[in-house]
Amino acid sequence: MRKPTIKDIPKSLNLSPSTGIFKNSKSKIIGAIAFDISNPFFLDFLKGVEDVLFPREYKILLSNVDENIDKEKTYLSWMIGHGVEGILASPVRERNGKSNLRLYQNFYKMGIPIVFYDRMFYSQGQFDHVIVDNQDAIIQALMHLKETGHEKIGIFLSKKGIFTIEERLKGFLKGCKLLNIPVKNEWICEDIYPHEKAIEVLNCLKRKNTLPTAIIATNNNLTKYIVYAAKKNNIKIPEELSLVGFDDSLENELIDPPLTTIKQPILEEGKIAATSLLSRIEDRYARPMNVTLKSQLIKRKSVKNLNL
Amino acid sequence: MRKPTIKDIPKSLNLSPSTGIFKNSKSKIIGAIAFDISNPFFLDFLKGVEDVLFPREYKILLSNVDENIDKEKTYLSWMIGHGVEGILASPVRERNGKSNLRLYQNFYKMGIPIVFYDRMFYSQGQFDHVIVDNQDAIIQALMHLKETGHEKIGIFLSKKGIFTIEERLKGFLKGCKLLNIPVKNEWICEDIYPHEKAIEVLNCLKRKNTLPTAIIATNNNLTKYIVYAAKKNNIKIPEELSLVGFDDSLENELIDPPLTTIKQPILEEGKIAATSLLSRIEDRYARPMNVTLKSQLIKRKSVKNLNL
Repeated sequence: MRKPTIKDIPKSLNLSPSTGIFKNSKSKIIGAIAFDISNPFFLDFLKGVEDVLFPREYKILLSNVDENIDKEKTYLSWMIGHGVEGILASPVRERNGKSNLRLYQNFYKMGIPIVFYDRMFYSQGQFDHVIVDNQDAIIQALMHLKETGHEKIGIFLSKKGIFTIEERLKGFLKGCKLLNIPVKNEWICEDIYPHEKAIEVLNCLKRKNTLPTAIIATNNNLTKYIVYAAKKNNIKIPEELSLVGFDDSLENELIDPPLTTIKQPILEEGKIAATSLLSRIEDRYARPMNVTLKSQLIKRKSVKNLNL
Repeated sequence: MRKPTIKDIPKSLNLSPSTGIFKNSKSKIIGAIAFDISNPFFLDFLKGVEDVLFPREYKILLSNVDENIDKEKTYLSWMIGHGVEGILASPVRERNGKSNLRLYQNFYKMGIPIVFYDRMFYSQGQFDHVIVDNQDAIIQALMHLKETGHEKIGIFLSKKGIFTIEERLKGFLKGCKLLNIPVKNEWICEDIYPHEKAIEVLNCLKRKNTLPTAIIATNNNLTKYIVYAAKKNNIKIPEELSLVGFDDSLENELIDPPLTTIKQPILEEGKIAATSLLSRIEDRYARPMNVTLKSQLIKRKSVKNLNL
């Protein structure tokens, strides 16, 4: 066996040498920073991104940063080293507030197109972003719970520091105030990360006999672990505990009981993020594109109507 | 804004210029051919691959070929064009038998390391591969159904031509023969792709009053659509119809009823595939590494014991 040379390639692909895939000075690669590749969010998101990139002949250099800023930094350096033309990033923020914001800003100054998706920084300046209105998502859930007679409402939050989680907590506090729902600290369960911790926290509330009548989950894996924990502890959903989950999929229709959930338009988010990045690659001086998408509450059977 | 230069990068990353990430003549990139990125298989598989690659400083150029051989060919050409050091591929095979086998063989001759995962070709020659024993997986399911008194057993198969699906059908026919289970053509439901077609097929069997007592599904999305179709048609699982699903996840524990499923070791498959590819990159002349993993039947509540 000998090493392949560029000359070999057009022959085996039946491409004429003028196809030009090896002459282009542009890399035609974009980097995608995924906060956790095993999160089902990425099934729809990457599908949306790829749907846009493929016809434009752009490829994805994929990362998986496991909510770790050091890993994120390493991948960012690799991506730049490989000459990516732009980066799609859902930036990580540690519990202590640390992030790679300065690094992203340096890249921006160097003219590297970046689009934030799912997450952004509060003081990020000129970056393009595509996010969901996370506060509104939780307020929609609270309104539904209020209408169905719930006053004792808890929220299970994933890793502290993450933009989406902070926003969902803000939405909870704001919504409770607006709707005159009392806020009890014991029911604001923060930093449930890894998500398996949900099991322990729910058990604890059950043992102390201080369960709220309803819980709002703030991401898809947390949702599943809450359903799992309720099953294991013989807490009947929705008879003893109502649940509003986060993120939607066919499974939510099949789970016992079918879950009322907040559905984010994830496929669309992927398409918009990729389209924005390609636009930014074409025109680095365009005005920032800031997109906020609305989520939707899908009502099924995991919320009990206490008014009946 | 000016274009970034290589000199800018170590500064903003706080790397010393001797870090050497831009000097290496090797690309340190591997290509991953995904048959359908929106299949939950890839959540675990890519996690396994990335776990192995990251510490070795290898990155993933991701593709999504949507079970389409032309798209697969395009991505393969792009990958070679980008100088990937090796390729992880789950090759596509069309209904009519067409595939890119010859292209893969040309790459092999050119010395490009390739490891097939999940799927392979029957006459592929020297390629490394990591697959699951698909025939055994179905035979395990049949044995469990036989033990629980089932004789009228159907199988729902995804896209015709795909290696895993062909193997699962072979396993079904072999297992039925071994176990003296009668085979009825009407219950071998082939080519249910897209998977939504499962709904129509199940409805049809119900209308004609020719439902088997049990169905084996042959992939995760098919499994969910069968559960969904049964719900919509008031076919009670397992009272009227038993089901053995394919692929496992926490959801299967939460679905009503909790699903008996065939669990493939997908995370492990990802790790082994990546490890094999790195070994092959290091030693192109090593003997082929052919790994067949065993799946496991997880018994829950979707199979009724007809002997009771």
